Amino acid sequence: MTQQTLTQPSVILTPEALLKHWQGHRNLTRRVIEKFPEHELFNFSIGGMRTFAQLATELLSIAGPSLQAIVANDENPYTEERFTCDTKEALLQKWDEETEVINTYYAQIPAERFSEVFNLFGQYKNEIIHSIFYFIDNENHHRGQGYVYLRALNIEPPFFWER
Amino acid sequence: MTQQTLTQPSVILTPEALLKHWQGHRNLTRRVIEKFPEHELFNFSIGGMRTFAQLATELLSIAGPSLQAIVANDENPYTEERFTCDTKEALLQKWDEETEVINTYYAQIPAERFSEVFNLFGQYKNEIIHSIFYFIDNENHHRGQGYVYLRALNIEPPFFWER
Repeated sequence: MTQQTLTQPSVILTPEALLKHWQGHRNLTRRVIEKFPEHELFNFSIGGMRTFAQLATELLSIAGPSLQAIVANDENPYTEERFTCDTKEALLQKWDEETEVINTYYAQIPAERFSEVFNLFGQYKNEIIHSIFYFIDNENHHRGQGYVYLRALNIEPPFFWER
Repeated sequence: MTQQTLTQPSVILTPEALLKHWQGHRNLTRRVIEKFPEHELFNFSIGGMRTFAQLATELLSIAGPSLQAIVANDENPYTEERFTCDTKEALLQKWDEETEVINTYYAQIPAERFSEVFNLFGQYKNEIIHSIFYFIDNENHHRGQGYVYLRALNIEPPFFWER
């Protein structure tokens, strides 16, 4: 650290940069969903794991609803009900709708709140910045699993570094 | 946050918190390596992908060497040579050695440099903060693949949220 950091902390990440980073990941996950044939999206899995549609439903059930909960300070429990779909088209449509929900609610969280501890879904107590990191990490983790499903299906996944 | 943050941009993430986050991920990846039986670590894969030992070797070849390169301002090319191992024990030992290398060199990057564009390995031009995010994301991505390998081998992976 330099002298500057003794008088004022350096900003290594802004809320805007973190949102852009997250939406870049979401854009890649969307392209992974698209790569799955309809049947395999809802039926294929390895080793007793969930299908990629189920994993994507989890991601949808976390992202927008978490931000809405943080903004409203509500601790309603986690549910996947609103995001469970039967078709790839419906899943992709919900994905795009939630992109806007995320942008809208994220913008309503002031930077000062990122270090605040919030009890997400009434059960996950964490600083908001670390909850957001968790959303991104969890998406990465499950999307990586989707890459294996695609490879096992002999389908070339999108490049990981293209967002 | 204090009054101070009302007049200057809010710090949503400190370099120290990001290092702790990263090392938490590395600790989880170490436990995934441990879960693999010796033979499967070096031989099992799905859909023509790399083995988990090869993926872990990539992670080792990126993390410490990148930080050393950033500190020294060198643009030497990427290589996996130093980290290629034949045994799980050797791989875990290198993993632990690199934990210290990461801590040592990370501490030598002043916070002001995180927004600086650096040409990693002479070919990946990115702000340093985004390179570090990439290292973490890439680890998450490949570790998620390791989870599928473990499930396919009928081995219970560690809990994702335990770091």
